[in-house]
Amino acid sequence: MELIEICKRAKEVKYEVQNLCTDKKNKALLAVADKLEAKAQGIINANKKDYENGEKNGMHQGLLDRLLLDEKRIKAMADGLRVVAELPDPVGEITEEFERPNGLKIKKVRVPMGVIGIIYEARPNVTADAFALTFKAGNAVILKGGSDAINSNIAIANTMREALTDEGINPDAIQLIEDTDRSVTTQFMQMNGYVDVLIPRGSAGLIRAVVENSTIPVIETGTGNCHIYVDKAADLDKAITIIINAKTQRIGVCNAAESLVVHEAVKDEFLPEFEKAMKEHNVEIRGDKDSTAVMSSANPATEEDFGKEYLDYIISVKTVKDVDEAIAHINKYNTGHSESIITEDKEAAQKFLDRVDAACVYVNASTRFTDGFEFGFGAEIGISTQKLHARGPMGLKELTSYKYQIVGEGQIRG
Amino acid sequence: MELIEICKRAKEVKYEVQNLCTDKKNKALLAVADKLEAKAQGIINANKKDYENGEKNGMHQGLLDRLLLDEKRIKAMADGLRVVAELPDPVGEITEEFERPNGLKIKKVRVPMGVIGIIYEARPNVTADAFALTFKAGNAVILKGGSDAINSNIAIANTMREALTDEGINPDAIQLIEDTDRSVTTQFMQMNGYVDVLIPRGSAGLIRAVVENSTIPVIETGTGNCHIYVDKAADLDKAITIIINAKTQRIGVCNAAESLVVHEAVKDEFLPEFEKAMKEHNVEIRGDKDSTAVMSSANPATEEDFGKEYLDYIISVKTVKDVDEAIAHINKYNTGHSESIITEDKEAAQKFLDRVDAACVYVNASTRFTDGFEFGFGAEIGISTQKLHARGPMGLKELTSYKYQIVGEGQIRG
Repeated sequence: MELIEICKRAKEVKYEVQNLCTDKKNKALLAVADKLEAKAQGIINANKKDYENGEKNGMHQGLLDRLLLDEKRIKAMADGLRVVAELPDPVGEITEEFERPNGLKIKKVRVPMGVIGIIYEARPNVTADAFALTFKAGNAVILKGGSDAINSNIAIANTMREALTDEGINPDAIQLIEDTDRSVTTQFMQMNGYVDVLIPRGSAGLIRAVVENSTIPVIETGTGNCHIYVDKAADLDKAITIIINAKTQRIGVCNAAESLVVHEAVKDEFLPEFEKAMKEHNVEIRGDKDSTAVMSSANPATEEDFGKEYLDYIISVKTVKDVDEAIAHINKYNTGHSESIITEDKEAAQKFLDRVDAACVYVNASTRFTDGFEFGFGAEIGISTQKLHARGPMGLKELTSYKYQIVGEGQIRG
Repeated sequence: MELIEICKRAKEVKYEVQNLCTDKKNKALLAVADKLEAKAQGIINANKKDYENGEKNGMHQGLLDRLLLDEKRIKAMADGLRVVAELPDPVGEITEEFERPNGLKIKKVRVPMGVIGIIYEARPNVTADAFALTFKAGNAVILKGGSDAINSNIAIANTMREALTDEGINPDAIQLIEDTDRSVTTQFMQMNGYVDVLIPRGSAGLIRAVVENSTIPVIETGTGNCHIYVDKAADLDKAITIIINAKTQRIGVCNAAESLVVHEAVKDEFLPEFEKAMKEHNVEIRGDKDSTAVMSSANPATEEDFGKEYLDYIISVKTVKDVDEAIAHINKYNTGHSESIITEDKEAAQKFLDRVDAACVYVNASTRFTDGFEFGFGAEIGISTQKLHARGPMGLKELTSYKYQIVGEGQIRG
């Protein structure tokens, strides 16, 4: 189908989706989950084609692994839909209510965005995941997945559409752009008037391409150059435990730590311990002059290192003379994602909380907690690193907008 | 100064501005107000150059009027600053607070955006106005005003910077791009990493240019193709009063009505009254077939008419068979600004409130109330017609973002 036709259908169906009652949406999510499991074999067969093409084209093992679908993964997708069905419906929530002196009664009400576009890479599970969240929040969704997963995505999307039809819901609530031509993706990013918001999910490169080419409002997600600052008043045992967790628990995620900032007063005591811990976890250290002086195995860090989201077994180290320098260093190099101070000094902690410019600022905790599930949102569409609209973990509420409903008795403006 | 230098300074100063206490900000706003009045003559002299250039270049009378500054207008600018000083400071407000089962204490705190860019036309009062609001909300601001007002803007900006310096505040909290080359404006729209959000203020053309060229998140403001729907259960006296107000009280504003939608059951009774009222106010009517049949002076409306924000003494008329058709018509042609139903039928009213897709949806009131002051926000930077971030009138709160502050006791992720 032509892109413009897809967009027109989405714009048409959004009025239907935004008025679906909670029960109907939940029932549909459960039906989609069941149908995905029932049709698992067909989806796995389609996925096989993508996987074989990927192998032929020399796709990396990590990407192949993300592409692969088996019964267990399809079950996980279905269970994800069931979890979303359990979550409270954000639509219709009255977030403010006030009356003006002229008698106008104003309510601020949470409403769906309308049409949400999701652009992502060759991870077919996102197809189901993104549908679940956008649909529950009352939106129509248009998906543009990576071309390497096109057969899987078509199979998943068609299965979900079938389930919606069975439930008496217009299947255009979810549409997949099947055309894998790059120029179509660019056109999609400029469908103002049809698509209300675009959310790219994937690598820094993908997100940059969307930010640069889109004329539709974008929620930028993802890149995390996260720091742990060990203050002079830090409990050094806590510091070691937190750094090991933040750096090594999962290496390739946006909330993993990429840099240690350390107060010079504790560096001689702390850094050798840190070096030992990193060695045990096979993490390469790249430090500034003051830090490498006390860590024999560390390599020198370049300017570039401090700005880098490694997503790898590497960590940079910067020594500072006080919390102010730590804050300035972090604000210079971070990506606005997650930053943590390890300290028992309440004043330093508050300063760090107030002055570090990031979505999530921690005291004595791992940056790995920046996550919709860990925050109790029950779901996550991504982590916003921009300041417009949503910042940090985005759940169902963050997939809504609001409107003002104003009731009068004939008021006119004087 | 080079654009990149301006942006670097803004990024640097934002950390200072976001940490200014409320008293210091208010004192600075009052000092800026006083200084503008004290230096009024210099500003008026600079404005004279712009005005004379405008006349020479054949600028329209309406634009010349918007460009003109005199003592009274400078006093109004200063008073505007004083009003903003009185408003509550949105920064630091804790909007949510919760504890997770693992003991992490999470606060959602309102914080400044950082650096806000404002792009506007030859209206020098915006220079002071935009500074007041962005500064009070804790932001550094970079202004790019219309080149036709460059001398006025330089005089105003320099005066404000002087006042800030006197108050011990880094004057780079407000910077003006003095280079009037168009390519600089385009570069400004792509200063990601320096500017957090762009707000264009002005004509539909200006806003479109920003939306199309910006890679920075934009808050789209302005265009209003607003409708009044007169339902079959309308109080027709209320309807006439409201339409006269919405259409004619101020013709060139975005919350003025541009179209009447009327239920066929009341058209024969209502439209002749409406025609008479519009005639008295010199408003041309362009109607569909059913409506022109009962209004002899009306012209036929084209498809294009229904999609048009006239900002003029013209109104389109569409007849519908029920509230559903009214809603569908409005959702097809509107710009997501303000829509009103006139009815005594509560069910029809609620349907209209729920289903019309617009920032502000009214029952029995004029669309002219869509305004930050009328909503009680005490200020307004514009009316957002997009769904991301803010929708409808934007006051100080809408010029902020939020961050999560999380306090732990050594928690790591399992």
